[in-house]
Amino acid sequence: MEGEPTLRLRIFDLNCWAIRYLSKRRRERMWLIGDKLRQEGFDLVLLQEVWSEQDYSDLRVKLAGCYPFSHYFRSGVIGSGLCVFSRFPILDTLLYQYSLNGYPYMLQHGDWFCGKSVGLSLGVTALLLSLSVQLHAEYCREKDAYLPHRLVQAWELAQFIRHTSKAADVVLLGGDLNMHPEDAGIRLLRGWTGLRDAFAEATRFEGCKNGCTLVPDNCFTDKSELLPFPLGIRIDYILYKAISSFTVKCEELKTTTGPAPGTDIPFSDHEAVMATLHIQRQGQPVGATLGTADLALVDVVAEARTEVGVGLRAAQRQRYSAGRMAVLALLLLLLQAVAALGTVAGLGTEQPFPKLSFCLLALLALGVLVLATGLHVFHTMEVKMLHGTEDQMWMALRALQERP
Amino acid sequence: MEGEPTLRLRIFDLNCWAIRYLSKRRRERMWLIGDKLRQEGFDLVLLQEVWSEQDYSDLRVKLAGCYPFSHYFRSGVIGSGLCVFSRFPILDTLLYQYSLNGYPYMLQHGDWFCGKSVGLSLGVTALLLSLSVQLHAEYCREKDAYLPHRLVQAWELAQFIRHTSKAADVVLLGGDLNMHPEDAGIRLLRGWTGLRDAFAEATRFEGCKNGCTLVPDNCFTDKSELLPFPLGIRIDYILYKAISSFTVKCEELKTTTGPAPGTDIPFSDHEAVMATLHIQRQGQPVGATLGTADLALVDVVAEARTEVGVGLRAAQRQRYSAGRMAVLALLLLLLQAVAALGTVAGLGTEQPFPKLSFCLLALLALGVLVLATGLHVFHTMEVKMLHGTEDQMWMALRALQERP
Repeated sequence: MEGEPTLRLRIFDLNCWAIRYLSKRRRERMWLIGDKLRQEGFDLVLLQEVWSEQDYSDLRVKLAGCYPFSHYFRSGVIGSGLCVFSRFPILDTLLYQYSLNGYPYMLQHGDWFCGKSVGLSLGVTALLLSLSVQLHAEYCREKDAYLPHRLVQAWELAQFIRHTSKAADVVLLGGDLNMHPEDAGIRLLRGWTGLRDAFAEATRFEGCKNGCTLVPDNCFTDKSELLPFPLGIRIDYILYKAISSFTVKCEELKTTTGPAPGTDIPFSDHEAVMATLHIQRQGQPVGATLGTADLALVDVVAEARTEVGVGLRAAQRQRYSAGRMAVLALLLLLLQAVAALGTVAGLGTEQPFPKLSFCLLALLALGVLVLATGLHVFHTMEVKMLHGTEDQMWMALRALQERP
Repeated sequence: MEGEPTLRLRIFDLNCWAIRYLSKRRRERMWLIGDKLRQEGFDLVLLQEVWSEQDYSDLRVKLAGCYPFSHYFRSGVIGSGLCVFSRFPILDTLLYQYSLNGYPYMLQHGDWFCGKSVGLSLGVTALLLSLSVQLHAEYCREKDAYLPHRLVQAWELAQFIRHTSKAADVVLLGGDLNMHPEDAGIRLLRGWTGLRDAFAEATRFEGCKNGCTLVPDNCFTDKSELLPFPLGIRIDYILYKAISSFTVKCEELKTTTGPAPGTDIPFSDHEAVMATLHIQRQGQPVGATLGTADLALVDVVAEARTEVGVGLRAAQRQRYSAGRMAVLALLLLLLQAVAALGTVAGLGTEQPFPKLSFCLLALLALGVLVLATGLHVFHTMEVKMLHGTEDQMWMALRALQERP
């Protein structure tokens, strides 16, 4: 290792839970987050769930002095919620929207409307590729209907990182991955990209036990959700890897614990994750850091592919049901049209059914037709994307197994 | 330049116009395309508008001997229509779906349902990044409602290439860009990525005059569309650039002209483009080939940003109209509900309006409400994406202007 100057990089990552009209004490918390960021002077800040552009603009004004560079990633109906603040110039940005992100009719879960994405920003001092990320939420761990979608997202995220990180020196990912550390999606993401988990690698750790970021002590978390996990769960991560001739070490990892200093409320329903990384240039480019030849990787890709296959068959069944429903509604409408025409043409001597019921039935049939057609189109897209991912994973498996 | 062995790469690109039930003599033409590919033995084949997976499977079986590697990119309702056949192994693939791609309610144009994308495949012998591409069609050149969407796509395509091509040796793009050579989108794509146009660079050319790929002589083209262009138009391209220590030269470019040999029909409504490239390793890595410091580039990015701004304002107006319509329909429905409740509660002594008209009006209001809400949601997403692209272009302009 050469004696070249090293860089200490301090990173802040937080799911801000800032949904207009829905999140409790949002303005107050965003103000506190701004204060914290200004006081601590991190190098890089990766935020998620900043759904309101006004909140972002307010933060930007407040932080202009210490974080002169920032970017807000727009996508979906509500937005991606992702933004980045940086002490160093942001040279370029790119947004990649996952091809699958829940269902538009699951209004109570709302993920579909958010346009969940990965926001990539490329900056400065040892070409740093930093990603702010959020994946589809898990609403029920026992019967997780969104598992295939989240696995597709984890796969797309991993592929996106592999393809965009080639010229970077260091890749940094911060975000709410909505997955427990041992989940297939996390293992897939880490295995397929070679990213390392700051919590597992940190020399020093300070914060919630086991690095949990969703804890029952937080007054905003849903206690019933966390009943099976009395210590909480860890779903927010800082991951990193060095490419080319650099090494990265995680010196320290911290999480926030409970209320913000001097107040009675925490910053968010998630705890923030803060890492101090040590980046050093080495004399020689290091070898392939992917470790993709690993047998464990074959297992995890195969496992993910099986889950995606399960999702594919479910989507095919839903597509079929929606199509059948649309055809039935169309037949009913046609039948009604024939009956109505018959009456108008005077074929029947008297009207055989009350007008009101007739109209209501037509209304119902039309509604069902429109809805079922929409669902059919949507599930067709879902089938295509799940099928495409299954194919890609198969290609990856073949490539892994063909290696000596 | 060192005396290292050079690689001659023969590439075939064609928009196959293979839409099930709609494209004329589709099966016959796909058969002819397969024959041509088998006879000529290209190194790389980039196809677009292969909408039917069955057509792809048939081609794959037929070409298994000479093109052992292939990939079909799935997306959207119908699919992306993109596929790649290769003599060399395909190591990895990635699909990037443009964030904007027309309107779902423009059924007659159908682009929205196609999930237009760029399919990236990474292969072999001098790490070759090859892209099969199709952008949104232009339906009326004088009043081109899709220009902002196509510019967003050209920008996203350029950004995608910049971010994914860093570790490649050579980048190859083949596809139907739906833009004339002097259009802003093409200038943007070429300027921002440094890609070179095989037609302009070719040492030898053979084929339709001016390299046109949509010509009036082709029996499948719409003659009225080509009235202002008696020679035809050039909208299919092979673009390339060398990165790292390689040079690429286009030795020969050809287009097909008229009917396939021995038949009375051409392969498609587009002419195929075939390039022979000469790839050679140089001793020293060449400098930045982007030429992004170019003043002309500033102009073209600014021009594209203006057009995207025009599209943004149009989308904002449409979003507002749709929102207003939804509110009016909701008010009407509420009014009807109050009237109906009043009648049921016996407040009115007799029913003041015929039941049938009342029901039909409610049906109409409900229909308008559903449609207008859907449109509002859609145009909100459009506004977000146009706004995001405008931001990114602004960032690019600032970076360009700040360079010495």
